[in-house]
Amino acid sequence: MFDHRVYNFAAGPAAMPEEVLKIAQAEMLNYKGTGMSVMEMSHRSAAFENIINETKNDLKTLMNIPDDYEIMFVQGGGSTQFAMIPLNLMTKYKRAFFLKTGQWAKKAISEAKIYGEAEVVASSEEAVFTYIPQTTRADYKGDADYAYICYNNTIYGTHFTPGKLPDVDVPLVTDISSCILGEKIDVTKFGLLFAGAQKNLGPAGVTVVIMKKDLIGNAMDITPTMLNYKTHADNNSMYNTPPTYGIYMLGLVLKWVASQGGVDALEAVNRKKAALLYECLDNSKLFKGTVVPEDRSLMNVPFVCPTDELNNKFIAEATEAGLMELKGHRTVGGMRASIYNATPYEGVQTLVNFMEDFEKKNI
Amino acid sequence: MFDHRVYNFAAGPAAMPEEVLKIAQAEMLNYKGTGMSVMEMSHRSAAFENIINETKNDLKTLMNIPDDYEIMFVQGGGSTQFAMIPLNLMTKYKRAFFLKTGQWAKKAISEAKIYGEAEVVASSEEAVFTYIPQTTRADYKGDADYAYICYNNTIYGTHFTPGKLPDVDVPLVTDISSCILGEKIDVTKFGLLFAGAQKNLGPAGVTVVIMKKDLIGNAMDITPTMLNYKTHADNNSMYNTPPTYGIYMLGLVLKWVASQGGVDALEAVNRKKAALLYECLDNSKLFKGTVVPEDRSLMNVPFVCPTDELNNKFIAEATEAGLMELKGHRTVGGMRASIYNATPYEGVQTLVNFMEDFEKKNI
Repeated sequence: MFDHRVYNFAAGPAAMPEEVLKIAQAEMLNYKGTGMSVMEMSHRSAAFENIINETKNDLKTLMNIPDDYEIMFVQGGGSTQFAMIPLNLMTKYKRAFFLKTGQWAKKAISEAKIYGEAEVVASSEEAVFTYIPQTTRADYKGDADYAYICYNNTIYGTHFTPGKLPDVDVPLVTDISSCILGEKIDVTKFGLLFAGAQKNLGPAGVTVVIMKKDLIGNAMDITPTMLNYKTHADNNSMYNTPPTYGIYMLGLVLKWVASQGGVDALEAVNRKKAALLYECLDNSKLFKGTVVPEDRSLMNVPFVCPTDELNNKFIAEATEAGLMELKGHRTVGGMRASIYNATPYEGVQTLVNFMEDFEKKNI
Repeated sequence: MFDHRVYNFAAGPAAMPEEVLKIAQAEMLNYKGTGMSVMEMSHRSAAFENIINETKNDLKTLMNIPDDYEIMFVQGGGSTQFAMIPLNLMTKYKRAFFLKTGQWAKKAISEAKIYGEAEVVASSEEAVFTYIPQTTRADYKGDADYAYICYNNTIYGTHFTPGKLPDVDVPLVTDISSCILGEKIDVTKFGLLFAGAQKNLGPAGVTVVIMKKDLIGNAMDITPTMLNYKTHADNNSMYNTPPTYGIYMLGLVLKWVASQGGVDALEAVNRKKAALLYECLDNSKLFKGTVVPEDRSLMNVPFVCPTDELNNKFIAEATEAGLMELKGHRTVGGMRASIYNATPYEGVQTLVNFMEDFEKKNI
């Protein structure tokens, strides 16, 4: 039981900026003189239309999204995108390229196989996904409708750097759920980018899709209306009732990101936060990072102690100290610290201090 | 600009109990000593597992849901259900019966046609859906996988009474989005019931599905994993990250419903609220209800003045008086007052007083 806010290192749903939660709290019963909560507001009301339009525009500005991209807010998380992408894009050659870099890429591959051929061009599965494979143009053989990557692998703590992106002529599709707004991403390199909100954007239940407009409109006949991007593009994400409160929270987070100086400023902080933690791991005789240095994520940092007993002891003592949700994914074991935008530098510093103390007592 | 809470007659998203919003407000930064908001909480945490399990159990109790039914929380609203239902159920005869009683039934019909044959058994479209057609057993001809109805038609203000339910041997499927918990519904009469939360249950972005367990598991091969009920049934609605905050809010609403005495007690209040408003309409020389008396909804009450000029004047003056969102759907015109569980009797009384005043001044 805590009477204060903890440091929350959960992978998602994840920590949100305290300033954002305080605004939501203040506006809960009466949003800007409307006499009602955003939760109670018709999605067709002027007040909500304003919220959704501002949110779109703020994202466009923060991510430098060109005019020939559509921004959509949909439901169902990444797992629904795994079906929407082939249903909407795997339409000419019925074939797509995939880089298998983790569990979420694997799920995208399985789902694509329902609708066509999923060609795995490279994989790091043999090394428990501890690195991002380097591919060259020659690796992408034959026709395909698109190439798919998971930009930042939440579970395994790897991320793509620009030099490792597929060098292909087909549209690139990417899952940026765990790195959106945490580092600069060149939208123009991609045909479609998507992100579940619950890591770096806001609460679970909203998925952001950024899609080149000329890719919209070719869905397969069997596509459910709600899984056709055209439905959402044509209706400003309001074909039916969107997750209004989630979009409002996402909008508040975007305004907070802008107030912090935008993505460049946050990336600079994120690089410092990650450097602090990786340096601690690299200097430690007890803790060990699991990812090769060149592919290390800025957002998700998995690490292990030499024994499960020590891992469990560390997690238990950290939890007691208010350093929460440090248990790693079962396929990696050990610990994982997710240090998204909302985790302040002091949060990482507190974790590192705690790790150093723990090391002294347990080595 | 209001410095107080208004009466909100929106059809959905709609008014929520003020008590519920106050709890959400108080718990926004620290839920029950966890040191974090529910929004920030891992869906795999003990605290959230407790929330989702309590919410399921509370719904089971409030609606008297038998053990052989699964309760699921999914995303995508009713419009996604329109695809999930045929994808999961239209599997043997590739054919289903429909009663066309409004726009949402029509959308369900169109979507079902993607996957099979949608047989419209009866329709009230010729009378702008102002009544519920009476059918008999003989009207349902040939084999079908299920029969579909929209129990309460939000736009047109009609609802099914038990005597008008289809008399069929196939599973009955029903959209109860706008009447769930507002009146007693005998779950055992149905194979599947679903409700978008944003009318009587909580915020937009969560859909409740109540489904007979023996109907789960026969989805078509082309079904996206997230649109297969089995995915959600097998994973306690947590195959992927569910809309955690929406489920929490829904849980708070259920506890509020219980505190009011449950569905029977709320139905009694709802009958009084509806009677007050319908009596006003029936006695008025200016306002006129649009629905035949025997099929009138307890939840959505459409009415009109003799001219559009008067309709617009009424809506404008009501809005100024803090009686919000009374504009009717464009296909009906005039006004509509949605008086869900969260609208107190005094809200309806205030509206009726305002209508009587308006009538005096404008007749």
